[in-house]
Amino acid sequence: MLTPDVAVVGAGPVGLAIAWRCAQRGLRVVVHDPAPGSGASHVAAGMLAPVAEAYFGEPELTGLLTESAARWPGFAAELTAAAGRGFGHRTEGTLVVGLTGDDLAEARRLWAYQQGLGLPITPLRPSELRDREPALAPRVRGGAVAPGDHQVDPRRLVTALRTAAERAGATLLPGRVDRLTDVAARVTVVAAGCGAAALTGLPVRPVKGQVLRLRAPGRGAPGFRHVIRGYADGESVYLVPRDGGEVVVGATVEERADTEVTAGAVLRLLRAAVDLVPELAEYDLVEATAGLRPGTPDNAPILGALPGRPGVLAAAGHHRHGIVLTPVTADLITELIVTAEPDPLLAPFRPDRFPGLPVGGVRVVAGAGGAEMEEETCD
Amino acid sequence: MLTPDVAVVGAGPVGLAIAWRCAQRGLRVVVHDPAPGSGASHVAAGMLAPVAEAYFGEPELTGLLTESAARWPGFAAELTAAAGRGFGHRTEGTLVVGLTGDDLAEARRLWAYQQGLGLPITPLRPSELRDREPALAPRVRGGAVAPGDHQVDPRRLVTALRTAAERAGATLLPGRVDRLTDVAARVTVVAAGCGAAALTGLPVRPVKGQVLRLRAPGRGAPGFRHVIRGYADGESVYLVPRDGGEVVVGATVEERADTEVTAGAVLRLLRAAVDLVPELAEYDLVEATAGLRPGTPDNAPILGALPGRPGVLAAAGHHRHGIVLTPVTADLITELIVTAEPDPLLAPFRPDRFPGLPVGGVRVVAGAGGAEMEEETCD
Repeated sequence: MLTPDVAVVGAGPVGLAIAWRCAQRGLRVVVHDPAPGSGASHVAAGMLAPVAEAYFGEPELTGLLTESAARWPGFAAELTAAAGRGFGHRTEGTLVVGLTGDDLAEARRLWAYQQGLGLPITPLRPSELRDREPALAPRVRGGAVAPGDHQVDPRRLVTALRTAAERAGATLLPGRVDRLTDVAARVTVVAAGCGAAALTGLPVRPVKGQVLRLRAPGRGAPGFRHVIRGYADGESVYLVPRDGGEVVVGATVEERADTEVTAGAVLRLLRAAVDLVPELAEYDLVEATAGLRPGTPDNAPILGALPGRPGVLAAAGHHRHGIVLTPVTADLITELIVTAEPDPLLAPFRPDRFPGLPVGGVRVVAGAGGAEMEEETCD
Repeated sequence: MLTPDVAVVGAGPVGLAIAWRCAQRGLRVVVHDPAPGSGASHVAAGMLAPVAEAYFGEPELTGLLTESAARWPGFAAELTAAAGRGFGHRTEGTLVVGLTGDDLAEARRLWAYQQGLGLPITPLRPSELRDREPALAPRVRGGAVAPGDHQVDPRRLVTALRTAAERAGATLLPGRVDRLTDVAARVTVVAAGCGAAALTGLPVRPVKGQVLRLRAPGRGAPGFRHVIRGYADGESVYLVPRDGGEVVVGATVEERADTEVTAGAVLRLLRAAVDLVPELAEYDLVEATAGLRPGTPDNAPILGALPGRPGVLAAAGHHRHGIVLTPVTADLITELIVTAEPDPLLAPFRPDRFPGLPVGGVRVVAGAGGAEMEEETCD
């Protein structure tokens, strides 16, 4: 086999989408992953929520989320056609709701900020809220609608992306990559989520998230159709209804690297979910999972060429935003590979933006047989 | 192979203990079960709690629970020696606690009844309660101790009983028994839990129970040693700590025959558990299970000869009490088989005690080839 043009390390949504886009451009592409789709995407809820996720002090990230969400409809249509299968892309929109007066005040403070950025979110009267979703608890105090905040099913997305990438000519390889020096390709893209730290020295850290999957009795459709992002007695929770009866309830955000499911987290998620939508108490609890998001110091992804490592690009550190950012990441990284010119959109997300933090992660060590390369890891 | 003296249908604790006792008496014994230990015992917590389980209006059942609990120490010692392995028999006793004033009033009403029967349960001052178990939440209002209410691990008990029965000469057969007429033995013992209804027509119905298993972080011992039977904001819950770090949290009592785990039940169990013992929030949630108890119209087991069916005995319908009742059931049924004389202890639990309910379950149907037997089921 000829040396590939592009080797992608990591077959999550970001890595597979890059592989698909590069293969579409006629590049020879391989993707290395012993367990495709087993990282953060396996646990992710799949909200495409640039508005409801827009947070104080993260304007560049909000811009990228908005840009990527705008690309999602076209990306979804093209991927559905290419893969010959859907992945639960639903466009009913998101309701932001507050259970108590305090919860509503917290939600309102955030959506006022979002409105100030010109993002599409509209407060609703309680009666309007209940007209849209009668399943909401009567005591929910109020909320708003973000009609452009949609959803996909991340597990089905991985399957579709894998099919599309392979149909476009990319090759998945099951070997595990422990050192980038073992990868032979013109360009190597590190899309390894939390694994990017050990491979590159980038400041990517695991951020634990615990998520539940419920199922409506008899596998009927859930009794609500919007994604619901709720604040309930100080807990922030989201409820994502799927066609097949599934409701994803997430998620904790914990600065821990284990993947144990804890009683306290399950209790908090269930309590908030049932307080917001009482009928969920009658649903089956079919899965409780913990996963690790690839967090970064500023919560934004790390996209672009690694300084001091010719031919190595990062597409990592997507934290809580990997699914919504998949289209824009794939487009921008592919364009960078093809043209060698970084799009201006990439500027805020360059790998060298963390002064004083280890970047590159390779140092030269004099050894008996001459210079050898050694990886540094970021714990 | 010679026709067995005794065929036991059902390899749960009751069936296996009967097989063991019969084999010890020199009888040829077979046990039929395609999945030993997969019924109610798989989900059971294993409390040996004749005192804390003594309930208004069930004096005969309370007497049998007390009798069987008194046999447990000897039974446990003999079984441990026979099987060459333990099964988590622990004798720290049980604390009954009430979270709120209302909860304490409910608990107190019951323990006053238990004291009135002369059962060993002693109220404790809150400071005494906390001296015994500092892990209890500070807001627990009060409680009592039942020092004779012990515990075993039912899954390990099944393993030990199986070993002991086989060592004593009993043979386990994996075939499923759908009709008692397919069983060839001098005496057939139906110890099939919920399956007894279809086999015999006895009024045994499934009563769903949902149970959680938590694990202390790092698999250390749980931070409390007593079994805790708690009343918490109107929920009744028990917490059973095991040596290996496991804590069983149970259990719902639902008149349903499905085995789905529901969000509302898990929420109620976790909320009560964490309210009573806050450190449980930090424990891993390792299992959520639902099982079916074999319930009867008066909550008491059905023990003895089936009228109209020579050679068929029932040892079924143990409901929530199968583990504690295992020794006395095995002793009395074995004695009945060997001597053909029912012990007076069996009198309140005879299969024919439900007037107007179908008993026996066999009717003769005239067919082309003569009379044939047909099973009736109890739905």
